[in-house]
Amino acid sequence: MTAGKRLAVLGAGAVGGAVVDLAAAYGHTVVAFADSASAVVDAGGIDADAAVDRKAAEGHVGDDDPEDVLHADYDVLVEATPTTLGDAEPGFSHLRTALERDRHVVLANKGPVAERYADVRELEHDSEGEVRFEAAVGGAIPIVSTVEDLGPSRVTAARGVLNGTANFILSRMAAEGIDYEHVLAEAQDLGVAEADPTFDVEGTDAALKCVILANVLAAGDREFTLSDADVEGITNVPGSALELAAEDGRTVRLVGEATREGIRVGPRLVPGNAALAVTGTRNIVQLETDYAGQLNLSGRGAGGEPTASAVLGDVGRLG
Amino acid sequence: MTAGKRLAVLGAGAVGGAVVDLAAAYGHTVVAFADSASAVVDAGGIDADAAVDRKAAEGHVGDDDPEDVLHADYDVLVEATPTTLGDAEPGFSHLRTALERDRHVVLANKGPVAERYADVRELEHDSEGEVRFEAAVGGAIPIVSTVEDLGPSRVTAARGVLNGTANFILSRMAAEGIDYEHVLAEAQDLGVAEADPTFDVEGTDAALKCVILANVLAAGDREFTLSDADVEGITNVPGSALELAAEDGRTVRLVGEATREGIRVGPRLVPGNAALAVTGTRNIVQLETDYAGQLNLSGRGAGGEPTASAVLGDVGRLG
Repeated sequence: MTAGKRLAVLGAGAVGGAVVDLAAAYGHTVVAFADSASAVVDAGGIDADAAVDRKAAEGHVGDDDPEDVLHADYDVLVEATPTTLGDAEPGFSHLRTALERDRHVVLANKGPVAERYADVRELEHDSEGEVRFEAAVGGAIPIVSTVEDLGPSRVTAARGVLNGTANFILSRMAAEGIDYEHVLAEAQDLGVAEADPTFDVEGTDAALKCVILANVLAAGDREFTLSDADVEGITNVPGSALELAAEDGRTVRLVGEATREGIRVGPRLVPGNAALAVTGTRNIVQLETDYAGQLNLSGRGAGGEPTASAVLGDVGRLG
Repeated sequence: MTAGKRLAVLGAGAVGGAVVDLAAAYGHTVVAFADSASAVVDAGGIDADAAVDRKAAEGHVGDDDPEDVLHADYDVLVEATPTTLGDAEPGFSHLRTALERDRHVVLANKGPVAERYADVRELEHDSEGEVRFEAAVGGAIPIVSTVEDLGPSRVTAARGVLNGTANFILSRMAAEGIDYEHVLAEAQDLGVAEADPTFDVEGTDAALKCVILANVLAAGDREFTLSDADVEGITNVPGSALELAAEDGRTVRLVGEATREGIRVGPRLVPGNAALAVTGTRNIVQLETDYAGQLNLSGRGAGGEPTASAVLGDVGRLG
């Protein structure tokens, strides 16, 4: 059983809020919690319910300064602020501050490991702290730890459906024969797609996850960023393509593939009963391995609790 | 990267032979290797190819005594002798000898953790050595380590198709409309079913794996053995049942379920496109969890290399 750790949580959205909510159930104590403009810090453990309630009611978690979180006394920094591209700031600096203080970092934020993987590994190398990022790829599905346990050099490819919004849209288009615009509207009503769905429907989110996986597979031999990915989203998939596919017992899914050579994301024809033909918002990853054959891992790729379970799973795997 | 360990391998069948074959690729050294009647021991590392070749050509691996393996200087004992029920001997004694010498034990042999789980954990508690057994459940599929990482108390059930022989037979019956006896003969010709297929077709093998999973979920609160399992195999599934199911878009699979309350194995109707409707010899496990939703893990549940990869994955996870 893991000894309880002191967590500092940056980010009060669905994931950060769920981590704060569940930490006690996993035996950990949240000593600091920040959203973009406020924070609550308590060395004895914050009142998690009160902070989450206050965020919902008033829009901030506490009366302290977010900077206070970075300077608090904690064992693990949970970085759950929104993913940013390019310099991956401010998430990258949060990670650097923690590692320079020899603390561990668990990322739900994709930015640092998608866009600055080599920098992250270098900082980690010079630190007593470890960096883990299961929650950045595939929500609750234990993809990164499975690749780690297999040994990245023994995994030749990671391929899958890694964006629930795009998958929901395509599977609804296939099931109902409704066109893209209408299904997108339905998805937005259901909260499955954002008001600005670009990140999901243009394949960027799936690509970031594949870039992270490619960085894991390459294990330091080379570094990939989003700009290395060959990406096509679902915005140009006509309803007729799904109908035509169905006549052949097939369907269309937004499939991403990561190898040591690079990353491709795009709509692909798959057999209707294929493992990749997951429905709704579920995600799946297929790992091609040298000795273990093909492993399929599927589950909830997004959502506060599933992603928080990946964060807390990583906390448990820290040395 | 894991520091290389010295392995002593008991069992020269498909799994033991594959572990000996692959050990070097994983950075480990095999210092001792035994079949039921012979052994080869070399502190500097045995000639793996020569031993495996000799076994194939002459029926024995070396000129030493199998007892020599238990007394050799090694870090990890790989117990890959045939699964036995009841007292789980001689596998259990092999495990005990290793733990009493403060060595680690990695099991491919199901017996000790299916039939004497509490005894195994007690010996482990009193030892510096650890016991791991991924290879005992679902071949290459990382089921046990995933449950371990989630935290067994947060997994409410493990359900799946865990016997490739029975699954092959049922999926061939469904695909071809051939009756059980004929498909069994085909399976035996292909080497997918044993000359005596009882263990597989009567559900015993699947039940043992579910018993092990139930022991993991119960985490010491109670202990299960094969006798606790409610087991029905596939020998009474008529071809007509599969035809009838198909008319409704469904099929039949031998499904096992393990919870903290017990174990059930039996033929079950599942939707044709359900995750559980794996085809051929593939296995699948669905984990129902408190926070991570439902996780599906599928892959090659048997075979020398896939099972050896689970053994070597366990070696890598040892402290």
